[in-house]
Amino acid sequence: MRIRLTRVALVVLNVLLVYNIYKLVSPSNSLAGKPVEPSEAPSPLHHTVTIIFRHFESFDNDLPKSIDSFVSQVQPPPNVLVVSDTPVYPPLRFPAEMDSQSVHQIALNVNLNSSFEERNPLAYVKTKFVLFVPDSVRLPSEQFLQALLDDAEKEADKNSLAVAFEGLVDGVFCLKQEFNTKEWTVLFKRQNEHGAFCDAVQGKHALLLRTETLRRMPEPFMRPFPEILYLQTSLRGEKVRLIRDKQFQDGRALFNNGHLQWKAESADNKRRLKAFKELGVKKVIRETGKVEWYGCSKKSQRCFGTVVDDTPEYLMSGRWTPPCCLEALRKTARHVFSALEEAGVRYWLEGGSLLGAMRYNDIIPWDYDVDIGIYEDDISRSVWLTRASTKATVDDKGFLWEKAQPSEGAFFRVHYSQSNRLHVDIFPFRSTADGKMTKDFWFPTHPQDCEFPEHFLHPISSINFAGRKVSAPNNVRDFLELKFGKGAIETPQYPNPHLLRLNERVD
Amino acid sequence: MRIRLTRVALVVLNVLLVYNIYKLVSPSNSLAGKPVEPSEAPSPLHHTVTIIFRHFESFDNDLPKSIDSFVSQVQPPPNVLVVSDTPVYPPLRFPAEMDSQSVHQIALNVNLNSSFEERNPLAYVKTKFVLFVPDSVRLPSEQFLQALLDDAEKEADKNSLAVAFEGLVDGVFCLKQEFNTKEWTVLFKRQNEHGAFCDAVQGKHALLLRTETLRRMPEPFMRPFPEILYLQTSLRGEKVRLIRDKQFQDGRALFNNGHLQWKAESADNKRRLKAFKELGVKKVIRETGKVEWYGCSKKSQRCFGTVVDDTPEYLMSGRWTPPCCLEALRKTARHVFSALEEAGVRYWLEGGSLLGAMRYNDIIPWDYDVDIGIYEDDISRSVWLTRASTKATVDDKGFLWEKAQPSEGAFFRVHYSQSNRLHVDIFPFRSTADGKMTKDFWFPTHPQDCEFPEHFLHPISSINFAGRKVSAPNNVRDFLELKFGKGAIETPQYPNPHLLRLNERVD
Repeated sequence: MRIRLTRVALVVLNVLLVYNIYKLVSPSNSLAGKPVEPSEAPSPLHHTVTIIFRHFESFDNDLPKSIDSFVSQVQPPPNVLVVSDTPVYPPLRFPAEMDSQSVHQIALNVNLNSSFEERNPLAYVKTKFVLFVPDSVRLPSEQFLQALLDDAEKEADKNSLAVAFEGLVDGVFCLKQEFNTKEWTVLFKRQNEHGAFCDAVQGKHALLLRTETLRRMPEPFMRPFPEILYLQTSLRGEKVRLIRDKQFQDGRALFNNGHLQWKAESADNKRRLKAFKELGVKKVIRETGKVEWYGCSKKSQRCFGTVVDDTPEYLMSGRWTPPCCLEALRKTARHVFSALEEAGVRYWLEGGSLLGAMRYNDIIPWDYDVDIGIYEDDISRSVWLTRASTKATVDDKGFLWEKAQPSEGAFFRVHYSQSNRLHVDIFPFRSTADGKMTKDFWFPTHPQDCEFPEHFLHPISSINFAGRKVSAPNNVRDFLELKFGKGAIETPQYPNPHLLRLNERVD
Repeated sequence: MRIRLTRVALVVLNVLLVYNIYKLVSPSNSLAGKPVEPSEAPSPLHHTVTIIFRHFESFDNDLPKSIDSFVSQVQPPPNVLVVSDTPVYPPLRFPAEMDSQSVHQIALNVNLNSSFEERNPLAYVKTKFVLFVPDSVRLPSEQFLQALLDDAEKEADKNSLAVAFEGLVDGVFCLKQEFNTKEWTVLFKRQNEHGAFCDAVQGKHALLLRTETLRRMPEPFMRPFPEILYLQTSLRGEKVRLIRDKQFQDGRALFNNGHLQWKAESADNKRRLKAFKELGVKKVIRETGKVEWYGCSKKSQRCFGTVVDDTPEYLMSGRWTPPCCLEALRKTARHVFSALEEAGVRYWLEGGSLLGAMRYNDIIPWDYDVDIGIYEDDISRSVWLTRASTKATVDDKGFLWEKAQPSEGAFFRVHYSQSNRLHVDIFPFRSTADGKMTKDFWFPTHPQDCEFPEHFLHPISSINFAGRKVSAPNNVRDFLELKFGKGAIETPQYPNPHLLRLNERVD
């Protein structure tokens, strides 16, 4: 009997312990907890999916009825999140008979009454799936939603579902999308097959995806939505399957006058500009072939700060030279080549620029300047070099010519403009009696900055670079291997491999 | 024997179960998990406190040695977080012999390689306490840190500790701080007692606080740090005890030339402007009495959008009229009173403005315009009203006079400027044969917009409003109770109590 009592006590203790630990980790206990996935199917819809409205305009929306169509048709109602940048104003007015208990409005902007975590929409998602719906939507029925979730369960983990709208099926299509982060570039291509896996979907659609997928993204709620989300998912190889045979219904027509349309479009353009800036997108090639530049203009400053230890800030972030900077460098280089040629100054491509010419007929994609050698004797032939010798001078095309700091030796620098300091460096060399090309100052950390036999310049040769033919030493391979060492052409490397090596992972 | 075996099995099962559940909730299992508080004291320091560097400049810092002083003196080394807005550039170079394994560099800006959660510094904090240290710091010894934590354990939950620096004790002091969010205003007062509880601490110091406290804040890492953190803690009644008798040691002197000082100061000013904008601070009264305005200028636009349902956006966010808007409204009102008086137009304060004059001799602190009644017959006496009758006109002081939309009836509106649309409304009334004051259009949702006996204007009286004496009906109390109902003066209410009531909590 005593033994049985101990056993019973042990069992009771055990049960109590497990219950308390369960309470500790159960989702209701912490807003911030990871979603607890329902253990057995079929679970009620409200345990399986959270409905999220992210893209809508406060000045003209159909949210109350759209939300109502989910809340009143699904029992018990699923959680509905309305995620906005600032509190929706004027406030939403839900139909009087609607039960708004499961609707949470979350504004992302700083709110003195909420903790950081309370403004994180993901903290409110406890379900395995989230369904992003655009504004002005009607759920056909509870069964419709159940069928979509059944489809989603069957998909591989990395796939999401995009669901078309009745009457708008023709306006929805797939896009292939290549986000080359190193080159700050997104390339879109149209992809038209039905049922295919897409990188992105355009046109009005709802998006059903695993919460887990969303949690892996850097900025899951960034607008324009879902355009910016697709940039992030496609970068991780996650795909979307476009479903056309199941269709949501459309709600009230929105923005149905020119002014409202303009207002909605310019709001999105502003958001896109901001998102592209934060995600590092500077060049977009649309599926139509149209090229769009973001954050690049003749007046914009150089897109990176002073380069320390030969390793620009962008390299440290796993990026290469922004494409607009490369373009500005090319323009500056072509301008300098022409100016030197017109003046009869003998010049040749030097250092990393010559290396780039050999490899790609272009600037090395992570380089930040262009290097040229000239004969010191020829300086006086160029009016701009002559003027720059005494005072920084803007030439007739707006490029700025100046002499470098005396501490760095006597070389010249030509900047893209007065505000944009992307530049070409011009190093004057003189020939010695024993047939070498030399100068007075050498960069101590650049082994490639060294003397070389003058015969590389007799005859001067030419090479394709930055879109034109430019002067170069003859026997370029020998010249480069003299300067950079054997194999330099075939094995690209970052400028300061001690600090950062090519193909090293950067976080 | 069988019984004992079952018992043993039960115990084993139990242990296994508890172990597995422990593994599930243990901190190492989830970056994002809530901190697991060490159950028994004294626990090693690295289980008790996380060291955080938040305020430093990438262009001139002493971080490597500052960090080393913690990592090399405390064994095992505590977690050290270096939290920056963008990746630190040029990268930090730690002493070769330093163990940097416990150092985590977290950049808050969007990074395509990290999830949202991975950029959240709080996700890396597993300890009960965090110690924020300024750049250029030396930990005197492990015992010093242990003593601070012992002190912190003894403090009430809501208190943090601010710790002075050797040689800089005189430069550190307490501030009382009143953040009146409704009025967008922060008032600082000096508070000099030693050992007192402070709202904020100024001067170089380290800050030791409970992680829990940090987690409750809307923006725990906002810069300038800890200045902006104190705004948030003091708003929740959390206090700081300033400790002067235990002192950290100073590191290398930073910003020791004019240019670097200027660079650091302007970086902080920029951050302060941004932080104040996000937190809704528009007016700061410093402990010296100096008043600073943020985001307010003659050219800035009205700080709120079109008012819907008489309830401006700021009211929906729990705020009152921004102080700069009230000030602009007062200026506009005083200008209009003078203009009408000079022209001999008979006017009187109306509606909410008269109510405000009775209650506070001022505009109601959540009101967004000023209302005036005039005799319709007198319109022609004012050149500006006459001109505005046909065409919107800017007067010689830059105020814009215009006639309201015909759909709203025939009244006039005087705007602060062409860009800033804060305004005074002027409603023309005419007297009827039976001694009433009437007009043609009434605002349907404003019961206070109604006829009244002309005797309230004979004789016209005066009242203090917005800093001067202005015309008002005689017997103001009766006039207001006729318009707003009994008790209106004593019981303030928001303009549309159906939508939002005064003292209703807003999130």
